[in-house]
Amino acid sequence: MTLTAPGSVQADSSAGGPVPPCPARGLVCRNCGATFGLIAQHACAECFGPLEVDYDPELMKAVTREQIEAGPQNIWRYVALLPVGQDQADRVSLDPGMTPLVRADRLAAELGLTGGLWVKDDSANPTHSFKDRVVSLAATAAKGLGYTKIAAASTGNLANSVAAHAARVGLPSFVFIPSDLEPGKIVQSAVYGQTLVAVDGSYDDVNRLTSELGETDEFEDTAFVNQNVRPYYAEGSKTMGYEIAEQLGWRIPAQVVIPMASGSLLTKVDKAFRELTAAGLVEATEWTIYGAQSAGCDPIATAFDNGWDVVKPVKPTGIAKSLNIGNPADGPYALDAIRRTGGAVARVGDDEIVQGIRDLARTTGVFAETAGGVTVAVLRKLVESGRLDPAKETVVLNTGEGLKTLDPLEPVVGPTHRVEPSLRSVRAAGLIG
Amino acid sequence: MTLTAPGSVQADSSAGGPVPPCPARGLVCRNCGATFGLIAQHACAECFGPLEVDYDPELMKAVTREQIEAGPQNIWRYVALLPVGQDQADRVSLDPGMTPLVRADRLAAELGLTGGLWVKDDSANPTHSFKDRVVSLAATAAKGLGYTKIAAASTGNLANSVAAHAARVGLPSFVFIPSDLEPGKIVQSAVYGQTLVAVDGSYDDVNRLTSELGETDEFEDTAFVNQNVRPYYAEGSKTMGYEIAEQLGWRIPAQVVIPMASGSLLTKVDKAFRELTAAGLVEATEWTIYGAQSAGCDPIATAFDNGWDVVKPVKPTGIAKSLNIGNPADGPYALDAIRRTGGAVARVGDDEIVQGIRDLARTTGVFAETAGGVTVAVLRKLVESGRLDPAKETVVLNTGEGLKTLDPLEPVVGPTHRVEPSLRSVRAAGLIG
Repeated sequence: MTLTAPGSVQADSSAGGPVPPCPARGLVCRNCGATFGLIAQHACAECFGPLEVDYDPELMKAVTREQIEAGPQNIWRYVALLPVGQDQADRVSLDPGMTPLVRADRLAAELGLTGGLWVKDDSANPTHSFKDRVVSLAATAAKGLGYTKIAAASTGNLANSVAAHAARVGLPSFVFIPSDLEPGKIVQSAVYGQTLVAVDGSYDDVNRLTSELGETDEFEDTAFVNQNVRPYYAEGSKTMGYEIAEQLGWRIPAQVVIPMASGSLLTKVDKAFRELTAAGLVEATEWTIYGAQSAGCDPIATAFDNGWDVVKPVKPTGIAKSLNIGNPADGPYALDAIRRTGGAVARVGDDEIVQGIRDLARTTGVFAETAGGVTVAVLRKLVESGRLDPAKETVVLNTGEGLKTLDPLEPVVGPTHRVEPSLRSVRAAGLIG
Repeated sequence: MTLTAPGSVQADSSAGGPVPPCPARGLVCRNCGATFGLIAQHACAECFGPLEVDYDPELMKAVTREQIEAGPQNIWRYVALLPVGQDQADRVSLDPGMTPLVRADRLAAELGLTGGLWVKDDSANPTHSFKDRVVSLAATAAKGLGYTKIAAASTGNLANSVAAHAARVGLPSFVFIPSDLEPGKIVQSAVYGQTLVAVDGSYDDVNRLTSELGETDEFEDTAFVNQNVRPYYAEGSKTMGYEIAEQLGWRIPAQVVIPMASGSLLTKVDKAFRELTAAGLVEATEWTIYGAQSAGCDPIATAFDNGWDVVKPVKPTGIAKSLNIGNPADGPYALDAIRRTGGAVARVGDDEIVQGIRDLARTTGVFAETAGGVTVAVLRKLVESGRLDPAKETVVLNTGEGLKTLDPLEPVVGPTHRVEPSLRSVRAAGLIG
């Protein structure tokens, strides 16, 4: 199965507008540089290295700000920089993206940041996490490659997004989750009425199982969004970087703090900034990328601290479950981006994560899931340790919604007062004199 | 306290753009027609009838589609049709609005609707309900009227939105909730670090208490968003109607199904359609408005069935808690809009509500709270009873997020399969041969 030939100009889309050329010209191995067509494969046939999409730089340079700004208010405004979805009729998407970039002056003041602070808030996406971006790309690639079903292994956000995408278009989906997930996360994934398989095992067990299932005849026509179509899936994360630059007025921020699970999001935001610069869509400026992990799952932080190029797997613990990938596939590439841009990695414990959620909510009105708490707590730590420059403009990424991870907050936040329904009781509580 | 004089052209805003004139010229009593300035009052001094904002029709007619389309991707694009916020620097807002209008072809096919079906999905707002629209207007009016604090009585969505708005700008807020709310809803309201008062009583008790508190010296400088600044607050709901028309290509849909608690949202969507028509922003076409209630709280449905002009209060029960207002302030006005446009009201029980949530999620990928389940189940009932024309274009409103009301779903949705992490177990479960 192969996608449309590179650069080919297609007929007008069903929506009536002109269809831009597809800038993707193939897949390339990030290890050995071997090239392949736009196929359904995520590992290099030569060296087993990870494949990523390779673009035609001339087609990227032909893209203009005006062309993007005239597009829809979602990720597809960047379709001329993406590998799939050029024809609107081909998209399988909840149309995520163009989430708010929130100015966080009050948090900046508390932390002593004078260069400006922003929160890129992806809890505003349709299923309330950044996973809608990658699933929209993966599902569209799956359709283009001729697959008739989609599937994923997940601990929550990805499960939710895959099932919702499948429901929107009536595509069968198969989502595999550990059976001991919180009941709330199971409801979120089950409500869409798609196939939801609870697996008695850890997330790693679930992942291994879906890898095996991908090899069976029964799943031959199934795209596993973060396995066989992973190169397309991963490109969805670039749109978060594009949006930050566009929302700042076509400018790359000096410093960005990004949570890391597999490390893929961090590498793709860096890639987005490099692409925008190379395409002449922003002025060439320097940026520094910082990685955030929880102390309960810190393999990339440990590799960074020790100067390692490789990442040693860990067994994850702790409340930031959406970041709990003990063997991060993109760890080495994340380390590379962080080191190349002069950044750093920091880790924070569960108490700091909860405090990070509360600090962000209290000062911005943005209610983040635990991963967002990790990022805000790491921001604080980087400022306090002098590794992040308080005089430079900084963006932190919130990748998901606080309503998805209420459990760690329940013991620590609650009503400030409790009264009877009478003025006398309100007076006794000290609210009035 | 009075807002800016009607129609006055202000200086350029801090954002640098021209500031449109404010079209509001005062408040008017919906009962007796008495007029007042733009003051902080919600009941007529003559007859105790409800006050609403009165606009200068000439200023409304001067507004163009191009002017609106050039505005921001949120409710403030309609500022030339709103009573407050003309100067961007004066706004107290999370910038809600421009939420997706989702084409629901699969649900339409199941229900036999041939004229086109859309879901206006307000779960995409910053705190994931339509309340962000009204709170943005109320908080902005509060600031303009010189108040230094905001407050509300609420059972959830409003509490969340008021506390988040207050947190964003660092304004003190006081939110009063019944103490027996679900722990999740308490967390959502408490995480913003504002004053949260749990009251041992029903929502009606809480409401009475805040009315009394509004009369105390201590709360003299406090705007109660749905009490003393209610005329401005309520206008926020108009933006949902404006957006539907604009997103359809400046066209009013033939049929709209709207959930009713106080009835205010329904009356304001109807008002938005009337204003757009009068201002020449859409062609004059006919529309029909349908009201949705739960069987556990159906005072407006009962009044409709019996041909009453007044609404007899009930004691609310049932899972659609955000709609559980037993004595709906805008009930008579909602009845008027429904009857004037040839619509109807229907009610659905808790099982139908859960089924409505599941039907919507399964066919559109939109996960609604119980109020959205009410609306979808009522849509089905109206079609089946022949009261809604299947050949006409229909829009249903989802006012909130499914993650906020997980409890009723937990017993009925879950994994479709449970397996060990082995191909053998997957085979035994019938997923592969």
